[in-house]
Order: sequence, then C-alpha cells, then structure tokens
Amino acid sequence: MSELMSTAQELDAADPLAGTRDRFVLDDVVYLDGNSLGALPAHVPGRVEDVVRRQWGELRIRSWEESGWWTAPERTGDRIAPLIGAAPGQVVVGDSTSVNVFKAVVAAVRMAEGRPGRRDEILVDATTFPTDGYIAGSAARMTGCALRPVTPAEVPAALGERTAAVLLNHVDYRTGRLHDLPGLTAAVHAAGAYVVWDLCHSAGALPVGLDEHGVDLAVGCTYKYLNGGPGSPAYLYVRRELQPRFDSPLPGWNSHAEPFGMASAYAPAAGAARGRVGTPDILSLLALEAALEVWDGVSIEAVRAKSLALTDFFLRCVGEYVPEGRVENLTPVAHAERGSQVALRCDAADEVMKRLIARGVVGDFRAPDVLRFGFTPLYVGFADVERAARVLGEVLEEGLG
Amino acid sequence: MSELMSTAQELDAADPLAGTRDRFVLDDVVYLDGNSLGALPAHVPGRVEDVVRRQWGELRIRSWEESGWWTAPERTGDRIAPLIGAAPGQVVVGDSTSVNVFKAVVAAVRMAEGRPGRRDEILVDATTFPTDGYIAGSAARMTGCALRPVTPAEVPAALGERTAAVLLNHVDYRTGRLHDLPGLTAAVHAAGAYVVWDLCHSAGALPVGLDEHGVDLAVGCTYKYLNGGPGSPAYLYVRRELQPRFDSPLPGWNSHAEPFGMASAYAPAAGAARGRVGTPDILSLLALEAALEVWDGVSIEAVRAKSLALTDFFLRCVGEYVPEGRVENLTPVAHAERGSQVALRCDAADEVMKRLIARGVVGDFRAPDVLRFGFTPLYVGFADVERAARVLGEVLEEGLG
Repeated sequence: MSELMSTAQELDAADPLAGTRDRFVLDDVVYLDGNSLGALPAHVPGRVEDVVRRQWGELRIRSWEESGWWTAPERTGDRIAPLIGAAPGQVVVGDSTSVNVFKAVVAAVRMAEGRPGRRDEILVDATTFPTDGYIAGSAARMTGCALRPVTPAEVPAALGERTAAVLLNHVDYRTGRLHDLPGLTAAVHAAGAYVVWDLCHSAGALPVGLDEHGVDLAVGCTYKYLNGGPGSPAYLYVRRELQPRFDSPLPGWNSHAEPFGMASAYAPAAGAARGRVGTPDILSLLALEAALEVWDGVSIEAVRAKSLALTDFFLRCVGEYVPEGRVENLTPVAHAERGSQVALRCDAADEVMKRLIARGVVGDFRAPDVLRFGFTPLYVGFADVERAARVLGEVLEEGLG
Repeated sequence: MSELMSTAQELDAADPLAGTRDRFVLDDVVYLDGNSLGALPAHVPGRVEDVVRRQWGELRIRSWEESGWWTAPERTGDRIAPLIGAAPGQVVVGDSTSVNVFKAVVAAVRMAEGRPGRRDEILVDATTFPTDGYIAGSAARMTGCALRPVTPAEVPAALGERTAAVLLNHVDYRTGRLHDLPGLTAAVHAAGAYVVWDLCHSAGALPVGLDEHGVDLAVGCTYKYLNGGPGSPAYLYVRRELQPRFDSPLPGWNSHAEPFGMASAYAPAAGAARGRVGTPDILSLLALEAALEVWDGVSIEAVRAKSLALTDFFLRCVGEYVPEGRVENLTPVAHAERGSQVALRCDAADEVMKRLIARGVVGDFRAPDVLRFGFTPLYVGFADVERAARVLGEVLEEGLG
C-alpha cells in the first residue's frame, strides 16, 4: 500500500463525519459531482412514495391542509436556515434560482430607491455563473438601471452613490474561489446599497453566516450540497428587518396576505411568505424537505473542516500522482479563499473527464478546459479522494493517443 | 331505484370514456375537485419511483442526458400540445402559472412596441383568478404601461390604439363561464394588440384550438384536468411565428442558445426553449410527463361531449333533489358558455361543503358563498353525479341547525 493510501485510511478512520455516508445511496463510483447534483439520501424514495400514493392519491385535495402542503415553502425554508446562518422566518423555498435572483435584485433596487444618491446602477459579478448575469441584466432593464459587470475584487472601488444593488456569488462555480462575504457586504452597506448573495456553491459546504454578517438578500439552489434532487426548488432569504420593504416583481397569489380571500387588490403577506409566487411544486419540495434530514446532528463547522481536509488532501494527491505540468490548479490554496471544489485546467479536459467517468471517477467538465471536482463532506471520504487523484494520474500518464 | 339513478346507469353504460376511470387511483368518494387537483393516475407512482431510485439514485448526474432530463420541458410540452390544439414545438413546461403569466404579458407588451399606436395599456380580465391580475399589475408597472381591468364582455369596446396586451381566462374559475376565445382573439388582433390566454380551467376539459384561432400566447397549469400532481409545473405556449420576437423578462441560462457555453452575453434559444428559465424541476416534471399518458387514445372532443353531458345531468339532478330556492346556479346553461364545472351560490356554503365532504362528496368552497363542483370526464361518471346532487339535497333538507 502506498503512503497516500495509508494516510487516506487513517484520515477516514479519524473522520467524525464518516458515519453520514450511510445516509446516502452510493455505489463503488467516486462521486465528485455533488456540487452539480447531490446524491440520493437513502430515506427519500420512501418519503416520496408516501407523498405520491397517500397524500396525493388518497387524501388528494385535503393534503393542502392535512399533509401540510400549503406551509411547506416556509417550513422547508426554516430547515435550510440554520445551514446558512439564518434565524427562522427569513427563508422561503420555491421557484428556480434564476427566478429568485430576479425577485431579489429587483427588490434590492426598489429598496435603494429611498436612499440618497442616484441609485441607478447594478453591479454584477463578471465571473458569475451566467444565469445571474442574464437575469441581473433583465432586472436592470426593467428597473431603469445600468448593469455593470465587475470582478468581486473590483467591487469596493466600483461602489458609489449610483450603486443600487450588488449581485455576488459566494463561491465561483468555475474556480471554486470563496469570496469575502463579510467584507464585501460591509463595503456595499457603507456605500448605501443592498447586496444579494448567490449561495449555490457554498450552502451546505461551509458556514455562510447571513444574519451575523447583515446580508440583505440571498438565493441558492438546493440540488448541490443540499441533496434535494434534480431541479429541486431554490430558496430566497430576505433579512427580517427588510421584509416589510420587500416589493416583489412576481406578486403571485401565494404571496398575498389572504391568499384564499381571492381579492382583486394585491396586499403582500408578512414575513418570508412574501417571497412566494405561485402554487408550490409539492413533489419536489417534499423530496427536498425529506432530504434535509441528513443534516440532523451535523454541524456545518464540522462539514467545513472536513471539506478543507478533503480538498487539501486532493491537491496533495494530485501533486504526487499527476505528471508534472499536465494540470494547473485554479483553486485558491488559502483556506479562506477556497470553497468545496477543486478546478484543474487541463489540455483536452473534455476527453480526460470522459475517461475518468469510464473508470468510476465522476467529476465534470466546464468549457473550455476545466476539470471540476466537488467534495461533499457528508458522503465523500479520503480513500475516494486518493483514488480519484490516482486515476487522474493514470489517465494522464497513458496519454490520449 | 329512482328515475335519476336508472338514467345515470344508462348513461354510464353508454359512456365511451367509462374505461378511462381505471387509469386512476380512486375510491368510493365522489371526487368533484379535479378542477383544483386532479386524481392520481395509477401508473405514476411506479414511474416516480424509477425517477428517484434509478435515474437520480443510480445514474445521478448522467441522467441529464441519459434519462432525457434536459429535454423534458419541450418533450412534455409537446405532449400537452395536441390537447390545446397546438402543433409541436410551441409549448414548454416549467415554472408556475404566475411566473408564466409574467413572461407572457411582458413579452406581449414588448411585441406590441413595434406596432403603430401608443400601446401603453394592458387590459386584464377583472373577473380573473387573482394571481393573473396581480402579475399583470407587476408587468404593467415594469413596462411602463397602465393596467385596466375590464370584464371579458367589455374587452371589444375597451380595445384601441393604446392597447398593447390583453390577458384573459378561457374559463372563469368561480362561475365556470367559458369565454369566446376565437371572437375575443380576433377582436384583439383587429385592434393591433396581442392576447394572452390563461387555460388553467379549460385545458384537458374542452378543445382550445390555439393554432386554429391564431392565439399569440397562452399559459396554464397542469394539476387540474391534466392530473400532473400537486403544484406540477405550468406551461407556456408561444405561437411559432412570434417565437423569434419572444423577449423574455426571465432570460435564465436554460433559455440560452448554448446553455453550456457559459457565455457572459445572453443569446436566446430558438423555438419553445426560449420560454425556459432555470433548471427544470425534474421530479414534478417527469411525474407530469407520465401522467399525460392517460390521454393515449382519448380525443378531447369526446371529453368535451361527456363533460357537457355530466354538467347537464348534474344541473338536472340538482333541480330534482335540492329544495327550491336553496341554491342559485351561477354557471351558464348554454353549452357554448360553459366550462367543465358547476358553481352554485348557497347560504353557509362553507359549512355545506364541509358536510358534503364528510359524506364523501368532494367539491370546494370559494368565498364568499360558492359551492364549486368540477367534472373530470376521464374519471367522473353519471352515477357519481347523481349521488353528489342527492347528497347535496339531503344536506340542505336537514338544515344546518
């Protein structure tokens, strides 16, 4: 056995989160794509079956009350809340991340309208996952703002009395770089503007501290580190003191103060429900609610500690196994700047990833030349990490001839 | 046996759609709330289980290609298309009805911008299900238009060179009145404006004829007569020749011409995919796709014929069984003006509906005083109808003391 293999064994033996792997359906594949689609929690199929056969099939319409369907968006939001550092009553689940970005950015611009200054510019992370930029562009167009793409590092200098809202990603989807949420939030506030954080690549992988850092609004998906299932609904966080001023561009009947009053005039609900729109997607939502039970008894701090240990160990193994000069690490080495993934630039990355997958190591390819590996501490172990790096080394040794 | 009971038996015996009832999970309840939540198709639980256990649990990320997840929004749209009179390639499934109303109304206003006239007014059905009015209000606010609520009957007189878009319901959710889609569409077009039809209460219950009548845009939910499950995703129809001009206010990455190109500049996809936004909600979407198989071999014309026979028979039974003056029928008697539900005004309607439900007849209550009964021809029979009216008569005979 190699030194790295025995180190992996020791690390796995000492891992306080080793036991949570049994909460998931896994096989002998090394699954390093949980940052794209989280693995299936073992108890979810039975819960979904109950929702379909009994709640829908037998109780039918009565389930809106009796099975708690109507309140599931807020209830599920409150289950996510502790994972992102939010007190109850501030998170609501529903719609896609893109739709929630639209709600949040438009609402932020409207909040800024009362502030001194011109407040006619939206800053958006130029390195963002594209949908955030596209949606921010639409929000800008529809609120009469200019859209200005800047890198997160350029944000402090770009802020000013024109800034209405700033949309930032907590972790860069491509490089895995973790941005300075507390510092950037404080800078945005000092300029009199509002910040919207996209937590897609951080929630469930590391502490976010929304309340602690005074974040205004946040959105995120639930199918990555939260394991909610393919396309499971996203969430929206609105800081409690801003909720009365949250003026939604999508004021559907579910966000009405009296949704069953069927009034022709709109009056927004209090609290997190104000972020709802239409009828919630119950099958996906209750699958997510069930999936969140894998977090019972797990602290996000322990998850973060293991995540850093996994990515540290992966980088060490890559250094040992991969021939010199064949990959370039794009992910920051400093812990404070690293999310829960490692991105390696590599020639013919698309083909290399196909070969890795054929050998049971699943990551993903991001154009034009990036191998992306995500590390979900709840079910990825150190032996998985060693094997992934070893197989990568083998594939690159062999060449692609 | 009473005369109505034997008539019901004869009608059931002669019903060409009697066999489709076996495609659903039903019990001895008379379920007249399929216009709120359709019953569970019998094969759906097994299909959902496969999606969860195998597609998500075993194939995981590979299912986006191998299980056809990525193309499910258009594929499922094409299954709905024939039910609403649309050729393939014009319907896409995703998001809630409210979100689709927003896309459609904003897009209609933007299409109208190129037309002669001021085009700064949106007409909205004043009797609409509230969410359409709230969302149209937001669309008006964000496009600089005025919002003008009018009844469908007032629409022709209200149309003019200021009209940009008109949002109408095909069937009134409260009274069950069917509006004149061909005539109103022609009137809107004659005024140079665009029309958006909400098909929530007509799709799956009667022929719609979107292509035939030249409708511009349409939206609808899938959990009523389409039996897609609680909160299953809605759909958006954009007439083929208007697709190149469909300018979405929610241009998420799923609507990009090259969604995996990860370009920072937005370029819209061609065709129905342009109406997509974020990652599709796979569990709910594939449950809906499976549910649509109950339509195999069923013509919407046969469904309409049975629907009218059911509601005719219900009104006749109510006339026989219910004490004079205790209910007032709000639903048009003329076939051309009737959807697939009957609404009865009734004192203490809320309490009356509770008693009906306690006796196994499930309809719903709509504030302030309406008993609403929906008739889904695929699984409601004439004996059900007779029993529902008879139980209503008994409840009202007894009084509410």
